[in-house]
Amino acid sequence: MTEPASPASTERLRRQNASLVLRSLRRLGPGSRSELAQRTGLAKATVGTIVGELEALHAVAEEPARPGSRGRPGRPVALAGERYVALGLELNVDYVAAVVLDLAGGTVAHEVRPVGDAAPLEALVALVADTARPIEDRVLVGSVVAVPGLVRGDDRTVDWAPNVDIDGEVVAERVAAVLGRGPVHVANDADCAAYAEAHHGAATDTASLLYLTGTVGVGAGIVDGGELVRGGSGFAGEVGHMPIGDPAAVCGCGRRGCWETAVGLHAMLRAVEEPEVGTPLASAEAVALRARDDDEVRAGLARLGRDLGRGLAVLCEVLDPAVVVLGGYFVPLGDLVLDPARATLAERVLGPRQGPELRVGTLGIEAAALGAAERAFAGVFAGEVELAP
Amino acid sequence: MTEPASPASTERLRRQNASLVLRSLRRLGPGSRSELAQRTGLAKATVGTIVGELEALHAVAEEPARPGSRGRPGRPVALAGERYVALGLELNVDYVAAVVLDLAGGTVAHEVRPVGDAAPLEALVALVADTARPIEDRVLVGSVVAVPGLVRGDDRTVDWAPNVDIDGEVVAERVAAVLGRGPVHVANDADCAAYAEAHHGAATDTASLLYLTGTVGVGAGIVDGGELVRGGSGFAGEVGHMPIGDPAAVCGCGRRGCWETAVGLHAMLRAVEEPEVGTPLASAEAVALRARDDDEVRAGLARLGRDLGRGLAVLCEVLDPAVVVLGGYFVPLGDLVLDPARATLAERVLGPRQGPELRVGTLGIEAAALGAAERAFAGVFAGEVELAP
Repeated sequence: MTEPASPASTERLRRQNASLVLRSLRRLGPGSRSELAQRTGLAKATVGTIVGELEALHAVAEEPARPGSRGRPGRPVALAGERYVALGLELNVDYVAAVVLDLAGGTVAHEVRPVGDAAPLEALVALVADTARPIEDRVLVGSVVAVPGLVRGDDRTVDWAPNVDIDGEVVAERVAAVLGRGPVHVANDADCAAYAEAHHGAATDTASLLYLTGTVGVGAGIVDGGELVRGGSGFAGEVGHMPIGDPAAVCGCGRRGCWETAVGLHAMLRAVEEPEVGTPLASAEAVALRARDDDEVRAGLARLGRDLGRGLAVLCEVLDPAVVVLGGYFVPLGDLVLDPARATLAERVLGPRQGPELRVGTLGIEAAALGAAERAFAGVFAGEVELAP
Repeated sequence: MTEPASPASTERLRRQNASLVLRSLRRLGPGSRSELAQRTGLAKATVGTIVGELEALHAVAEEPARPGSRGRPGRPVALAGERYVALGLELNVDYVAAVVLDLAGGTVAHEVRPVGDAAPLEALVALVADTARPIEDRVLVGSVVAVPGLVRGDDRTVDWAPNVDIDGEVVAERVAAVLGRGPVHVANDADCAAYAEAHHGAATDTASLLYLTGTVGVGAGIVDGGELVRGGSGFAGEVGHMPIGDPAAVCGCGRRGCWETAVGLHAMLRAVEEPEVGTPLASAEAVALRARDDDEVRAGLARLGRDLGRGLAVLCEVLDPAVVVLGGYFVPLGDLVLDPARATLAERVLGPRQGPELRVGTLGIEAAALGAAERAFAGVFAGEVELAP
């Protein structure tokens, strides 16, 4: 295999080898050229060439030599943050969010804005304009917009978004028009949040993760073997509509008996007889406060937790996640809900299963936008997308 | 990237490039060297070298020139079946099975034996001995044993096999001892059957598949994006134990309300008031026969189908498979059960979803052993395992 290769295949190999180095720097942190050769299995000379090219692109940079090491080959190389960025956005019912990540994983900018009286898409477009200005001189690898709806496998078409009117094509085009550069893709919000919690948040220690959103609806992002489980049409994870709730309870989707009629935000507020105040998070914070000295509120949350555990038992039989991360309104309630859920789950756990760990998300309302930015970088780390000079 | 590479990385690249060619031949069939270069993106010279090496190994062979094409480069190259084989086995409660596949996908040998009064493992060992003799002069790439139990991510440890006593380590060692060569791995039977139906059977047209076994228990093999979904511990797909059945019904696992109490073999026989005769398949064939002129039997099967549809509705919200393949006892019953299941499912399908196609498996009782043989070859086609000379 030492004969000269065609330009196309050389190009492909070069990009693949470069992505091996980029992934290694991303996952294991800085390393000297020899360490990178060892980690990736590439020849030292190949690593030297790749590092040289990535340095010329300002994608990596040498760090100061470690004590005791001598010369260039010993100096650690690290991902550089100054040139390449990716933009993650979220378009939701009552807020929009933007996160700019750099190639080194640093957060360049992040902002959440209430939608107020504006149309959500107009609020998003305004946020994109403001976010784009400070990164005009950087290379934008790509943008991903997280939306609360079913997104087809083409990463563009939104087929069903019951809570907010979204045309994926229009969203992508409007955002691309403001940015003046692409590509812009659309993704499911729960998938993005799962991706974010897996890379930056509550579940960086596992490749097997179920993330549950907690708003009026309850959706899931599923990560297995480090990859998102998408389903045949991109619609996997609509767990809020599993028909395992009270068969008489009418869901926002028009059907009866969906799980989210028992564990969505409104079910929680009914269980503790509290009104909705502002965002799901604000409502849950108010409930958590009252639970401190109100046994009935705690009992209501325990009932909710048991309903949560019943549904998680179903999901664990199907998916066997190592970790379940609960986001949204579940976060302020924490163990008030998770402890009874854990108890119900333990009663159902099969044979030798440990059952998953239940954790609350750590990334807050920006989780989906952060995960969207991560996904915009994914092609680079997979060797599918070239870093433009 | 044209500097000389180290032996280790050259080796890795060589294997990866060779696997590109092997995969292309597998998926798209025979092709000339130029066609293979086009399909894989490799240089023609590289493809020439790879094909030469694979020819020397008897892994590929030239086919007769096509009419109108001239010279060696135009002759199609195809996977060759004569040298490399993989052994797939199944160890089950009442039968054992073996399938030998060759690299070209041909079935070299296949056999199913009832266990009778022997211990299942002894029956398997005897079958392996008989199966191994005719392939003694071939290169055995590996062996996989499908078992009806939870198999950990190490492809070896069986954690829970409620219907038959299995120690995965012992199974693998006994089989390896008879064969005199390894490696021998253990895998879940539903995963193997799903893999087989995806590659050879009822679902070769999709990368998104849910396979349901149909015996006393009901387990699932899940394929998403062409890959098996395994879960954090390898225990994904225990769908028969989703707590969505009659809360009072006691399951073989000791818990109540599992789905398989409503859709397993015994539930089906109760619904039509038939006795169990021989294997699940034989029982179902007897029921299918009676259903021809017995309205009550058909009504019983329709009730079963609706319970099946209820559970599939849960699985579709979670996994969104494009195709559901039903194996085991469901096969002889076919549309008698699947039509009411389809109707129930259609009532629950969300928004724009088509819902999955429901099909019966086409591979019969050998599905798991066939899939096990496929999985034994998987490392070769993924470029992880070298073809030994």
